[in-house]
Amino acid sequence: MTLTSFIQAAVMPGVDAPVEVRQFPRPQLEPGAILLETIYSEVCGTDVHLHHGHLAGVPFPLIPGHVSVGRVAETGGEVLDLDGIPLRAGDVITFLDVHETCGKCWYCTVAKASTRCPSRRVYGITYGANEGLLGGWSQAIYLKPGVKTMRLPANLPPERFIAAGCGLPTSVHAIERAEIKLGDNVVIQGSGPVGLSAVALAQLQGAGQVIVVGAPALRLAMARAMGADVVVDISEFSPAERVKRVKALTGGRGADVTIEATGVPAAVREGMQMTRDAGRYVVVGQYTDVGEIELNPHWDLNRKHLEVRGCWGSDFSHFYRGVRVLARYGDRFAWDRLISAEYSLDQAGQALADVAALKVVKALIKP
Amino acid sequence: MTLTSFIQAAVMPGVDAPVEVRQFPRPQLEPGAILLETIYSEVCGTDVHLHHGHLAGVPFPLIPGHVSVGRVAETGGEVLDLDGIPLRAGDVITFLDVHETCGKCWYCTVAKASTRCPSRRVYGITYGANEGLLGGWSQAIYLKPGVKTMRLPANLPPERFIAAGCGLPTSVHAIERAEIKLGDNVVIQGSGPVGLSAVALAQLQGAGQVIVVGAPALRLAMARAMGADVVVDISEFSPAERVKRVKALTGGRGADVTIEATGVPAAVREGMQMTRDAGRYVVVGQYTDVGEIELNPHWDLNRKHLEVRGCWGSDFSHFYRGVRVLARYGDRFAWDRLISAEYSLDQAGQALADVAALKVVKALIKP
Amino acid sequence: MTLTSFIQAAVMPGVDAPVEVRQFPRPQLEPGAILLETIYSEVCGTDVHLHHGHLAGVPFPLIPGHVSVGRVAETGGEVLDLDGIPLRAGDVITFLDVHETCGKCWYCTVAKASTRCPSRRVYGITYGANEGLLGGWSQAIYLKPGVKTMRLPANLPPERFIAAGCGLPTSVHAIERAEIKLGDNVVIQGSGPVGLSAVALAQLQGAGQVIVVGAPALRLAMARAMGADVVVDISEFSPAERVKRVKALTGGRGADVTIEATGVPAAVREGMQMTRDAGRYVVVGQYTDVGEIELNPHWDLNRKHLEVRGCWGSDFSHFYRGVRVLARYGDRFAWDRLISAEYSLDQAGQALADVAALKVVKALIKP
Amino acid sequence: MTLTSFIQAAVMPGVDAPVEVRQFPRPQLEPGAILLETIYSEVCGTDVHLHHGHLAGVPFPLIPGHVSVGRVAETGGEVLDLDGIPLRAGDVITFLDVHETCGKCWYCTVAKASTRCPSRRVYGITYGANEGLLGGWSQAIYLKPGVKTMRLPANLPPERFIAAGCGLPTSVHAIERAEIKLGDNVVIQGSGPVGLSAVALAQLQGAGQVIVVGAPALRLAMARAMGADVVVDISEFSPAERVKRVKALTGGRGADVTIEATGVPAAVREGMQMTRDAGRYVVVGQYTDVGEIELNPHWDLNRKHLEVRGCWGSDFSHFYRGVRVLARYGDRFAWDRLISAEYSLDQAGQALADVAALKVVKALIKP
Repeated sequence: MTLTSFIQAAVMPGVDAPVEVRQFPRPQLEPGAILLETIYSEVCGTDVHLHHGHLAGVPFPLIPGHVSVGRVAETGGEVLDLDGIPLRAGDVITFLDVHETCGKCWYCTVAKASTRCPSRRVYGITYGANEGLLGGWSQAIYLKPGVKTMRLPANLPPERFIAAGCGLPTSVHAIERAEIKLGDNVVIQGSGPVGLSAVALAQLQGAGQVIVVGAPALRLAMARAMGADVVVDISEFSPAERVKRVKALTGGRGADVTIEATGVPAAVREGMQMTRDAGRYVVVGQYTDVGEIELNPHWDLNRKHLEVRGCWGSDFSHFYRGVRVLARYGDRFAWDRLISAEYSLDQAGQALADVAALKVVKALIKP
Repeated sequence: MTLTSFIQAAVMPGVDAPVEVRQFPRPQLEPGAILLETIYSEVCGTDVHLHHGHLAGVPFPLIPGHVSVGRVAETGGEVLDLDGIPLRAGDVITFLDVHETCGKCWYCTVAKASTRCPSRRVYGITYGANEGLLGGWSQAIYLKPGVKTMRLPANLPPERFIAAGCGLPTSVHAIERAEIKLGDNVVIQGSGPVGLSAVALAQLQGAGQVIVVGAPALRLAMARAMGADVVVDISEFSPAERVKRVKALTGGRGADVTIEATGVPAAVREGMQMTRDAGRYVVVGQYTDVGEIELNPHWDLNRKHLEVRGCWGSDFSHFYRGVRVLARYGDRFAWDRLISAEYSLDQAGQALADVAALKVVKALIKP
Repeated sequence: MTLTSFIQAAVMPGVDAPVEVRQFPRPQLEPGAILLETIYSEVCGTDVHLHHGHLAGVPFPLIPGHVSVGRVAETGGEVLDLDGIPLRAGDVITFLDVHETCGKCWYCTVAKASTRCPSRRVYGITYGANEGLLGGWSQAIYLKPGVKTMRLPANLPPERFIAAGCGLPTSVHAIERAEIKLGDNVVIQGSGPVGLSAVALAQLQGAGQVIVVGAPALRLAMARAMGADVVVDISEFSPAERVKRVKALTGGRGADVTIEATGVPAAVREGMQMTRDAGRYVVVGQYTDVGEIELNPHWDLNRKHLEVRGCWGSDFSHFYRGVRVLARYGDRFAWDRLISAEYSLDQAGQALADVAALKVVKALIKP
Repeated sequence: MTLTSFIQAAVMPGVDAPVEVRQFPRPQLEPGAILLETIYSEVCGTDVHLHHGHLAGVPFPLIPGHVSVGRVAETGGEVLDLDGIPLRAGDVITFLDVHETCGKCWYCTVAKASTRCPSRRVYGITYGANEGLLGGWSQAIYLKPGVKTMRLPANLPPERFIAAGCGLPTSVHAIERAEIKLGDNVVIQGSGPVGLSAVALAQLQGAGQVIVVGAPALRLAMARAMGADVVVDISEFSPAERVKRVKALTGGRGADVTIEATGVPAAVREGMQMTRDAGRYVVVGQYTDVGEIELNPHWDLNRKHLEVRGCWGSDFSHFYRGVRVLARYGDRFAWDRLISAEYSLDQAGQALADVAALKVVKALIKP
């Protein structure tokens, strides 16, 4: 494929409105910008959420697709990579979807919590199609000046990168917050892309046992392929039974570390109860507001001496570390098998439907 | 007072049964044990809880009083202090109420979470009167071999030590978990002994502003005397207004660190909402089970990137550090003023009633 | 004083060349820039070092003065403070001397070690006079767009801010690296501005004892005024005696935490030996290359299970936290007394000489 | 083999005196003690050191062998494992060689640095043969009451456990101190048992690249088999070339984390220089005093913002975590191949000689 003067992109016109392919003029590049010819972009659970209006403030019409990989088509003057080497047409790169983390505000400078920077904007989520080719379900993506890019390492094919997709930096961040120690018992709640990447990463932190609590069977099979020691199917066991099962597998104590990646509020109390006294619980899957939960602060938190850590978004370090790990350990784990299906731009609506129905572990768009 | 062959002690016969003074024979000492002539023992909120049966497994009849200070009356052979110097009759010492942390179990050795050691027993709480003089509301206390003692430093009078009392090691532990940084905005929820000590300790961590949310007026006046910059009376403001007030005092963001020391379950969600994104929340006051709470895991936890840390009990390091800090900074803060009233053994029931009614900040027993 | 169309500044023409006052045209402001009318600027030990050519790469001629406080004279369009409020003429502000930390490079984004960002430039040190009014020994300072500013809090007079000066953010950083715990024994090596601020900050971390090892008598008196419990005059004791003295003051073990702020290489091994096994040692005073040291990696490091942390520069969080702490605790410690003398621009050379001769604790320039 | 009333053991009579087999009476067991029939014991570099008198305070005559695995022959009454299950004759267990960490002293309770507890005694190193069968080069080992034991997991054969040997808990401790992050560049200095285990463990922390700097060729081949990406033979490159090589492999910056496991003092400065600015350097190999080094505190430490951590000994958590990791990941790494040769008690002297000559990676004693 060679880019022409018109670029095709799949567009969500609004909440629950059918996805349609639209044509955009090829943009002029500002100095420092990059036009990226898309090789692959991802369809993830977040895209389903935003299509249904579960996220506030999405600027429809929208070109979805926050994690993508492509070939440099053109640069606005000289643009350097992280090592100071100029990017050239044909170079295969990816980029951090989160842009405009300001580096100046109180959250960036004092709290050093850049994922809470109020200026951050996200490709394919909070940048709308009216602002440009700022999503990955498109023949080309416009990378604004300053977007943080990364060359794919030689031993990391684009297929494997996109297979890990946005679940990888998110799970790198969750694993960083989890501080797993060598030999720890680790529970992963949820068997979607974030949970499955976390299964591999828990082993790359030296977990002594990895237990996945999730569904359906297809995804639990993937969890096993990723190295989980035990899987617990939530369709077969009640929450109380699940907690009991985890305790039985961990000397009666519960997991040293539990990572929640489910999107289901009720999972949170269950996860606290699956975790041992003085253990650590990371909550990364409560990405949208789907309701309240109950818990008992004496038993579930204070007496347990439990540590609970919310985990929001990811920054460039998580993205960078994810790519490094994928290049080094990609052969060891079954990341490639996370992709169940490829879709063209025309089929983007179908891709969304298949993801929503959990028919696939991961869908990708190949424009 | 000199100890005779009979020792008087105030005893709780059972749940809600009136406290009465009983007489015990003076014990024979095992090698390594110490008989301590009590100078002061404390009456704390926990004693009210256990009198009302809110704690499971209390072995009535009970001699309450977990934190005490006294004079060595006799030792079972040579007993050394922490620096290897023998303790002698007349030495003024205190001791860690938590004993028999085993140092061998999985929690002690692998998790390094000794406050969750299943073997731990607590003077005045989980040791009953049938096992000996194992509580402080007594003319003498039997320190079993291996109980961890500490000499009072020369510049720390017993009055000041007992004024800080058991709230001090608990708040030292909470402050350790809080990881306050220089200049942080800190909210303390609760103005009882733990909360009030935490006000002083937050300043000893360099907090930039200390806000206390509590009641009643007497205790809030004490909070001010301890150095609080702002007090918020919960009898005057609704929970939503309290959250709003804290945000207004912290540039709209909320506290960098919040410490809960209330005993009221509803305080937990309120505290999470008072804390800024990517802040830290320590829950130390949910010592008994008083019910469930609701919260929203998306807004209150995950999107906030919040860190929530339960904090249970304390170990010898907290006790030791508390004594050191009290000796060094006792003049600077109003710890002495935490004591509102002294009671004899005969008046122990009245002391309990006054503490329950919040008539006093802190009561102490002088046998 | 009102700024006219010509600005006077004290200039170092080159290594060891006499400081002279020169006149510069009042600059035109780019959008986002600020012209700051200097109230005070500081003379610090670094200025002596760079005058003598101990720092590589200083772009003479230079207007020295890296930490300063002033009044906004003019802004290039609307310029916002950290809370988003526009800065107006007359506002009293200070600013972080380190600029152009890039926020994009590997050190900024992956290592999160911005004080090692290769792009950073420092007012009064690595920006030369040929690039503009980029140092504080001047009637006015040109703050480039993006320079991080901070309003002085209402309860922090400019005199107190400049008294703490550049030693404050540096010592905030060192204290952050030191992770002092409540009740710790802390040794500060060095009694210059960084060491003296560290004395106060160690108390604001709840140190149980602060020991200062330094000279001369004037500065040790200041150390006492800042709250040091013990001072050890290096002109009276040999290195071995100093180590012995510290051990005697700390139960024979050595300090829990030692902070080096001397500029003398030999202090490093001595500091390691003053620190207890499994303690922590922060090295912040080795700002220039003054030679090699010997040490024994078995005894001084490995067997001690010692942690040694170099500490370079400071970032905006340290600056911000320092200002917060100074506003809250400025009355409690003797920061104001660190200033021994004020000098006009004409007297800048004399100020340098007095600092070099340790005649003053701190000198400041009042243009 | 069945134990008889006489137990044979290999004994070092004194410094450099030939190892000889002696006969000891089978001991009577105190309550809580265990008599362990040795399956394997290890010969490690430390045994060479102590034979040559490099360690002070070794109580000759000595039965060496600090890490061992065996079968329970007899117990002194009921002895429970960590999960509270009684140990029975025939159970295959191992034990922590470090005993009598007191749990009461200042280092154990306040500093929480139990590897610096002055009471600790070590099987095969600081317990002499005159005190009993307290070393592993013996048909049987007397485990005193309270010695911390651990059952070998079902999937961990004794051969694999002893292959990892004492290098494993030591390297677990070093890795814990190293705090490797996903994708980090890691240098291991030294290719002995500790270094080789660290190569595997660095991968179990998700290192992005593992570089081993060591010798001789046999051990570097083992390093490759353990998963090292690059090996640098110190017999082929000068120290300066080695530093340059590491920088070339790490984008010019140096390693994120370096672990020293060489025993050679000069390695320490080289390792500091191999590590990037704001990186971390763990020194675990300086087990004996072999002399002084020079370094430049400005360039090597302060300006680098480097963190240097000595690492002494190991505690039960390191031992426990090592066993868990070995059971879970033993198939993935070449631990089994670390054993080059088995020796009988008679051949113990030869075993020592072969280890000293680096003829074998690891030798073991099979009594």
